[in-house]
Amino acid sequence: MTAHLLTIGDEILIGQIIDTNSAWMSRQLNAAGISVSGKSSVSDQRQAIISGIEHAATQAQIVLITGGLGPTKDDVTKATLAEMFDSPLVFHPEVYDLIDGYFKKTGRSIPDNSIRGQAMLPEKAQILPNKVGTAAGMWFERDGVVFVSMPGVPFEMEYLMAAEVLPRLKARFVSRPIAHRTLQTACEGESKIAQRIESFENSLPPHIRLAYLPTLGQVRLRLTGLWPGEVTSESSALLDDELDEKMAELAALMPDWLFGHSEDTLQEVVGKILLAQGKQFGTAESCTGGYVAHLITLVPGSSAYFPGSVVSYSYEMKQKLLGVRPETLQQYGAVSAQTVREMAEGARKTLGIDVSLAISGIAGPDGGMPDKPVGTVWMAVSDSERTLVAQHIFGRDRSKNIQLTGVFALNMVRKFLLGEI
Amino acid sequence: MTAHLLTIGDEILIGQIIDTNSAWMSRQLNAAGISVSGKSSVSDQRQAIISGIEHAATQAQIVLITGGLGPTKDDVTKATLAEMFDSPLVFHPEVYDLIDGYFKKTGRSIPDNSIRGQAMLPEKAQILPNKVGTAAGMWFERDGVVFVSMPGVPFEMEYLMAAEVLPRLKARFVSRPIAHRTLQTACEGESKIAQRIESFENSLPPHIRLAYLPTLGQVRLRLTGLWPGEVTSESSALLDDELDEKMAELAALMPDWLFGHSEDTLQEVVGKILLAQGKQFGTAESCTGGYVAHLITLVPGSSAYFPGSVVSYSYEMKQKLLGVRPETLQQYGAVSAQTVREMAEGARKTLGIDVSLAISGIAGPDGGMPDKPVGTVWMAVSDSERTLVAQHIFGRDRSKNIQLTGVFALNMVRKFLLGEI
Repeated sequence: MTAHLLTIGDEILIGQIIDTNSAWMSRQLNAAGISVSGKSSVSDQRQAIISGIEHAATQAQIVLITGGLGPTKDDVTKATLAEMFDSPLVFHPEVYDLIDGYFKKTGRSIPDNSIRGQAMLPEKAQILPNKVGTAAGMWFERDGVVFVSMPGVPFEMEYLMAAEVLPRLKARFVSRPIAHRTLQTACEGESKIAQRIESFENSLPPHIRLAYLPTLGQVRLRLTGLWPGEVTSESSALLDDELDEKMAELAALMPDWLFGHSEDTLQEVVGKILLAQGKQFGTAESCTGGYVAHLITLVPGSSAYFPGSVVSYSYEMKQKLLGVRPETLQQYGAVSAQTVREMAEGARKTLGIDVSLAISGIAGPDGGMPDKPVGTVWMAVSDSERTLVAQHIFGRDRSKNIQLTGVFALNMVRKFLLGEI
Repeated sequence: MTAHLLTIGDEILIGQIIDTNSAWMSRQLNAAGISVSGKSSVSDQRQAIISGIEHAATQAQIVLITGGLGPTKDDVTKATLAEMFDSPLVFHPEVYDLIDGYFKKTGRSIPDNSIRGQAMLPEKAQILPNKVGTAAGMWFERDGVVFVSMPGVPFEMEYLMAAEVLPRLKARFVSRPIAHRTLQTACEGESKIAQRIESFENSLPPHIRLAYLPTLGQVRLRLTGLWPGEVTSESSALLDDELDEKMAELAALMPDWLFGHSEDTLQEVVGKILLAQGKQFGTAESCTGGYVAHLITLVPGSSAYFPGSVVSYSYEMKQKLLGVRPETLQQYGAVSAQTVREMAEGARKTLGIDVSLAISGIAGPDGGMPDKPVGTVWMAVSDSERTLVAQHIFGRDRSKNIQLTGVFALNMVRKFLLGEI
């Protein structure tokens, strides 16, 4: 069975907002064993909504509709659905109570009639209570096709999908157990990963699929297993065992690239290692201008292992705050193995930390030299016993060079802490 | 006339990538006077592509198709178009030369036959040369509907849209001059802005439209004028004059919120002021962990006015690197007017700069207190003459609190430098 995703709203058609909802929904549906056969977007007009829904119904058995459920007069989805399903709007006291409670929780009362109108819903709809907003979800059925309408506000849609829609869809359409395992890799591209694990991938049985989910400098690998045979009480456990086995096999193929599981981020993994080892960490950043410190401090609780950083953009700051020697800067330049080494060693002293990371490079677009093209970055990791230095040439635009440096630098810190380098 | 945007590719349907192309295309088309009536996405299958294109052709006069033009066997868009438009693939020597040149520029030769196949294109298509990749654009017409196929790689699509597609569409479909003006505002929400400029908005003639384009902590306001009358040699100049006048009127209504024009960012605007005033700037950051320094250094050439920053996450770093007095921290806490004031004043000395920004707050999710809830942020801007302090309570999640702090802090620096506060 397949689903079609329909978004309603002019703000998507004029490009005012990027539709992130449908990618999220697609991932959730795929994870639940339901594939998405198509997506579409139409404007806030009655006729556009009708034709969008009717078209969607010819494409899939499940039509998931988001948007157009707000209390203002622009939002006509509910009235259009009531008309399409020949189902007049009636007052739903239980929805009214929910909306009332929603406002009371924040110390307010229902502000006006337009909000009260949110409790008027189509008679024939199965109501999906929304505990994080005022627009209820609605579930209709017609000729074997399921139509679900949800608000377009991302966290309201996500709440309704998780609490109401996915469980109902799974119960109704998904008869076989499904399970997932995810591995996180850093600093290697999709094609090189694919090459190395080619025979593993070819050896997978048809009921286990492998997906590559790449972001800048990182690739997530997801195994999805769908129980192939008849369902018994043991199917789920057997499928889990099989996936665990495949996952271990896959992990063993790339110990050098793997850094975590599920939704781990590099800065979380580094943070956990620092906590476990009881080490204090900080950075001395030039071309990244504080970006790595920002990543580290995105993690809640990072103050337990991160006292601070120095952003030393100028020669003077490198000397004054980190103790880099003027001769080193003159002889080798700021973008050099010698300078990042002195920056890292100086940062340990200045910040009073156990482990430091130093970065110096040419983010671009200007400043490149024949022997140091734009995107050249030196990095060093240092503790009281040793200082390791590495060079990378990313050669992308300024913002991407900075982001890639973040990934490679955090991964270097991770391997350094684990003794892998 | 309206356009329909069709994306082809399984990576969109499984949620592997978020479709940013179509928002970009929508903005460009709207700016060119062409509105988007709908969007859809289909999988990489021949039959899905055909039915997607046929459906789109019933919805609009312009069908813009992206994706499925790569050299691998998954990419079947070109063969499907050749079939639909009854137009066999033939060898295009001029396209081959372009591809050859594209590889030569990077010191390589065409790697294999699959790339050579990129020069095989439908006989009846008008070819849109792609100078930044190997997949040419194709333009077909049938029964008054225009179909354009482009690669899905964002920068290739953007190149083809700007260099080939938009000029042709404008020449063909847009007969009247169109013009735009954009204002950038910070630190005020859409609804408050709408309230203040309500009578201005109501006074706009029907041929000038106002759009609100919000991002976190910022709203862009765009005026679009479409020449209403008969077109003469003076229409464009007259429309420009009218928009300039409206723009000045709008700007005069909100001198307190306005920070720039067009695609200006706050960090670029702050950078230009620092350059013009010949001042050196740096930050002392606690809860933002280097994020503001990162924003400042995203701007090429920022080294001219930014020597460096201190990220002082711990009490000790605040004392050691910035000279904050232990009594201040003990008496008022790290998140206080007194502490950010001392941080800002200390940063000027430590970094040897003219103007400093200091930030200390509770990013969350933990660490909130009854009198200082999560999202409480203190900031200070300081020069040799004065130090200003401000408090904000953002009350969002950790990442959003950090981003909002960046917007409010940079805007405070801007106003401080301009003497507006």
